[in-house]
Amino acid sequence: MSVLGGIALSFSLSAEPAPTLKDSLIRLSSNENAFGYSPKAQAAIVEALDGGSYYNRNDVADLVELLAEKEGVPSDHILTTAGSGPLLMMTAIAYADPEKNVVTTEMGYTQLIRKYDEMGGQIKYASLSEDMGYDFEAMSDAIDENTVIVYICNPNNPTGVLADPIELKKFILSVPKDILVFVDEAYLELTDKNFGMLTIAPMAKSLDNVIVTRTFSKAYGLAGFRVGYAVASPKIIDTIKPYYMGPPSFIAAIAAQEAVKDMDHMIYNVEAYQKTRAYVCDKFDAMGITYAKPQGAFIYFKTGIDQQELRDSMKEKGILISGSRESGVIPGKYQAWARVSIGTQTQMDLFLDTLSQLMVKG
Amino acid sequence: MSVLGGIALSFSLSAEPAPTLKDSLIRLSSNENAFGYSPKAQAAIVEALDGGSYYNRNDVADLVELLAEKEGVPSDHILTTAGSGPLLMMTAIAYADPEKNVVTTEMGYTQLIRKYDEMGGQIKYASLSEDMGYDFEAMSDAIDENTVIVYICNPNNPTGVLADPIELKKFILSVPKDILVFVDEAYLELTDKNFGMLTIAPMAKSLDNVIVTRTFSKAYGLAGFRVGYAVASPKIIDTIKPYYMGPPSFIAAIAAQEAVKDMDHMIYNVEAYQKTRAYVCDKFDAMGITYAKPQGAFIYFKTGIDQQELRDSMKEKGILISGSRESGVIPGKYQAWARVSIGTQTQMDLFLDTLSQLMVKG
Repeated sequence: MSVLGGIALSFSLSAEPAPTLKDSLIRLSSNENAFGYSPKAQAAIVEALDGGSYYNRNDVADLVELLAEKEGVPSDHILTTAGSGPLLMMTAIAYADPEKNVVTTEMGYTQLIRKYDEMGGQIKYASLSEDMGYDFEAMSDAIDENTVIVYICNPNNPTGVLADPIELKKFILSVPKDILVFVDEAYLELTDKNFGMLTIAPMAKSLDNVIVTRTFSKAYGLAGFRVGYAVASPKIIDTIKPYYMGPPSFIAAIAAQEAVKDMDHMIYNVEAYQKTRAYVCDKFDAMGITYAKPQGAFIYFKTGIDQQELRDSMKEKGILISGSRESGVIPGKYQAWARVSIGTQTQMDLFLDTLSQLMVKG
Repeated sequence: MSVLGGIALSFSLSAEPAPTLKDSLIRLSSNENAFGYSPKAQAAIVEALDGGSYYNRNDVADLVELLAEKEGVPSDHILTTAGSGPLLMMTAIAYADPEKNVVTTEMGYTQLIRKYDEMGGQIKYASLSEDMGYDFEAMSDAIDENTVIVYICNPNNPTGVLADPIELKKFILSVPKDILVFVDEAYLELTDKNFGMLTIAPMAKSLDNVIVTRTFSKAYGLAGFRVGYAVASPKIIDTIKPYYMGPPSFIAAIAAQEAVKDMDHMIYNVEAYQKTRAYVCDKFDAMGITYAKPQGAFIYFKTGIDQQELRDSMKEKGILISGSRESGVIPGKYQAWARVSIGTQTQMDLFLDTLSQLMVKG
């Protein structure tokens, strides 16, 4: 019963957590949380398993209440889904129109964008600033009379760059009120800055055209259970809900509740990310490797090696990383860039050693 | 750790399983499985929990392979979702058109129907036969040049009646090939007849216009984990997939695999349903209560008491049952009917005793 060992473990920042997925290559490709989820969440899951033949009773409703309290909004402003991905896709489908467009940053997360495109809508990409951050002037310029959604992932993915909170809020207020501003905060808990100063959720409470999404897959480490949610006005929720395919499972709802309550574990996780991210940046600096300023669960970096070649070589050495991710830019522009997820320090040391060897060869 | 007790339990048909949801009224309202799911599935879940911070690796792909083998189809004929509900809704959305209609039975399961209606499409109801079974002539007559889907739940819900397999297959072959025939087999494992003779899945392998859905929520008792699947040609899967919001969680995929392999537990569950269902029917006969011939996880029965009054009185006594469910019939027609899910024999005895008392009073 590995779960008992897991629960018995005392988590401390000084201890190096073991990667918990067995018989796997080192996974630095999907922004999964190598530090693990709340042991209290795991204990609650085990406790609930005997009831698995029943649909959840009040677990999802209880989660919604807890999230409403956490976000300071009425519970009709919360919609829970199996990860936040469904919310991105539901929104794309609900607003899809061949005559209309979504404005987003080049080099941003593509789940909403791809779905909007797949449904026949148009995408307008705004260029990034010099440091791969947000250029809100470029985004404003991209908005036209056919824009229905502005999509921002903050911190951005794959670049990892965080928006300046004042500039972001000013920009959101400047967007015409009939355009939906979608702020995807999947990685926001992991920044070095104050979460409360950065989140757009309070604006989603007061404005009818702002939706914020979060996931339990990243900072909370519950990726395998599939739970995420939106903070938005009932007007927006009603617009996307026709494409809603159901809530998270009761197990996910129970785990998420415990994860929200377990502040100690959250702090542990955030600190582990911050510490390890800074460690890798220092190493990159020493190695002369360029990177975008990372504030999420990953670093976007430039080796000069073709990204596919780098991924293949890394995989041969037992390490999975992710490629260049070039949405909205000239194809090939970031061919020498790649994305590495933050894992444990041991994993990152292995990655860095392997990278050094490959760069010497290259 | 209640799970350890759960796993240690040796399941035998003679033992009366305890209802496994704590602090709950007796739930005979949602067709949940009171006999419980495979202890091997539960053990596999516990074993996998430490990897919960990772997205599933091959768990969903492994489940798809296993289901393809089970159904005797290529794996591109399988689509897994969080319960079978998403498949019903995805299909409704994908085929929705204000000019087009879905043909179904009056008194059938409404998840696809409601969604099709919500998306602005039309519904045409075919009357049932005298015994609340399928009237395929009426269904054929209801099909017109604007029909895009024929939806059949077999055994039907809420009536519980099973279609004659030869008649059903003849009917499906008679439907024009440009109309999708959707056969929802959520309860088919629980009939008294031979599953292999009844299922339409082999037709979904050879015909481009037939989709069959199954769930792990009923006979397999995994309702709380959300896993189900479709058997259909890639052509149909491609049509509904734009509205796909993602696979089951890795926990659900792992549990479903173990459940499929644990034939002993499946047989135990099916026998428990058959035995308890027959027991309640005998009691109903003795009490002079009319009912539709039940072949699923529930019985649709007529007490003469107004259904809302009956439900309220039952709830006061700690028992949840379901109401009359009158889709496609004259409102009020089944006002004196209600639906009770099959629970454990102890639960059913409590239900029957309470019903006797209420009928004497009434």
